[in-house]
Amino acid sequence: MIPEQHFSVIIVAGGKGTRAGGEVPKQFQSIGGKPMLMRTIEAFHRFDYRMRTVVVLPAAYRTLWEELCRLHRFILPHILVNGGETRFHSVKNGLAKIGEDEIVAIHDAARPFVSPEVIGRCFGEASDLRCGVIPVVGEKNSLRLLNGETSKAIDRSRIRVVQTPQVFPADLLKAAYQTTFHERFTDDASVAEESGIPIKLVEGDEKNIKITTSIDLAFADFLYGNNLI
Amino acid sequence: MIPEQHFSVIIVAGGKGTRAGGEVPKQFQSIGGKPMLMRTIEAFHRFDYRMRTVVVLPAAYRTLWEELCRLHRFILPHILVNGGETRFHSVKNGLAKIGEDEIVAIHDAARPFVSPEVIGRCFGEASDLRCGVIPVVGEKNSLRLLNGETSKAIDRSRIRVVQTPQVFPADLLKAAYQTTFHERFTDDASVAEESGIPIKLVEGDEKNIKITTSIDLAFADFLYGNNLI
Repeated sequence: MIPEQHFSVIIVAGGKGTRAGGEVPKQFQSIGGKPMLMRTIEAFHRFDYRMRTVVVLPAAYRTLWEELCRLHRFILPHILVNGGETRFHSVKNGLAKIGEDEIVAIHDAARPFVSPEVIGRCFGEASDLRCGVIPVVGEKNSLRLLNGETSKAIDRSRIRVVQTPQVFPADLLKAAYQTTFHERFTDDASVAEESGIPIKLVEGDEKNIKITTSIDLAFADFLYGNNLI
Repeated sequence: MIPEQHFSVIIVAGGKGTRAGGEVPKQFQSIGGKPMLMRTIEAFHRFDYRMRTVVVLPAAYRTLWEELCRLHRFILPHILVNGGETRFHSVKNGLAKIGEDEIVAIHDAARPFVSPEVIGRCFGEASDLRCGVIPVVGEKNSLRLLNGETSKAIDRSRIRVVQTPQVFPADLLKAAYQTTFHERFTDDASVAEESGIPIKLVEGDEKNIKITTSIDLAFADFLYGNNLI
């Protein structure tokens, strides 16, 4: 699959990210000496150096980010957009910068280790099939479904764990995001399928971890420092 | 909650554990200079030094384990039982060593970082309520349910990720394990509820990770070495 000019990515770094501890949100904390968000932008640049990159940041952290870019001499081009109240609103703000004819990936800033293979698989299928494409992996834990005061075991062989990037023809996703926010929208696929966009699952990668807690962050820094990723 | 004399744990180290790489199964590999299985036994001993400990091991690794115990001067008392074809069969072998009047925990050897708080919570509730008690944590990923060729988003706020120890009045669990094996038995709660044993969920711990891959093992060793756990 040859990358095409109209590939874009919206990197969502809109959260306050305080679960990871530290004075600054996790997207600015260091992995191998460089803020996580820079690693994430680099991952997409590595896949396609012409990738149009939109970064959604809380307005309050724009100055901090610009300072970090100067400090780290980070020069990969990207457009900054202000974050919204929830992930849904942040993505919607990002989509305003994306043209109808583009293929757009929505990606968590907290997943810096996404591989070119996973990115390529998602963009390839989304271009070819005109549907939403999301990377998934199997569930290795036992799960239970709450039902009021009780709960029951779920057959995990039928469950897939969703990662990002979630990639869509931009016209379809922009239309889907015209809906009103609902709490069940935990990712873009859940918004898209509300509008009837078919969702295709492709193979994700166990290493494409989401860095949420301080332990995750320590792990990520460890993996990077020991060339394990 | 005061520990009582009849608390027992079956530590399931029955797997070949080859996903973690290395020449020996993961339960024998080192975390902070000591085999993982020793760390797991220690975790329960730390909670209650009178804990009766049954370790389920593949027969082929019994000699290796005994050599490791000599090498590490590991003297915590435990009974060795041969592993079975699946986790279900291994647990069943272990239960044969447990008295009807005990409260028994089933625990993965691959979860060495279980805290005394989590162990105590499970034993306490299982004694008081005469039901199965399992520790769970929230699901931070988006999930999808496969349905033939399609899939749909699941409301993750209703999902809990299951950990161990899973603790039961032994008479109830022994009776439950008289059933025939089914693939949907991925943990003890799923076996128990087949027999109508109520399952109570208690709060688990994000640090109570299951060490499955070589990356997990490297991380565990790192956490231990850096006093992060």
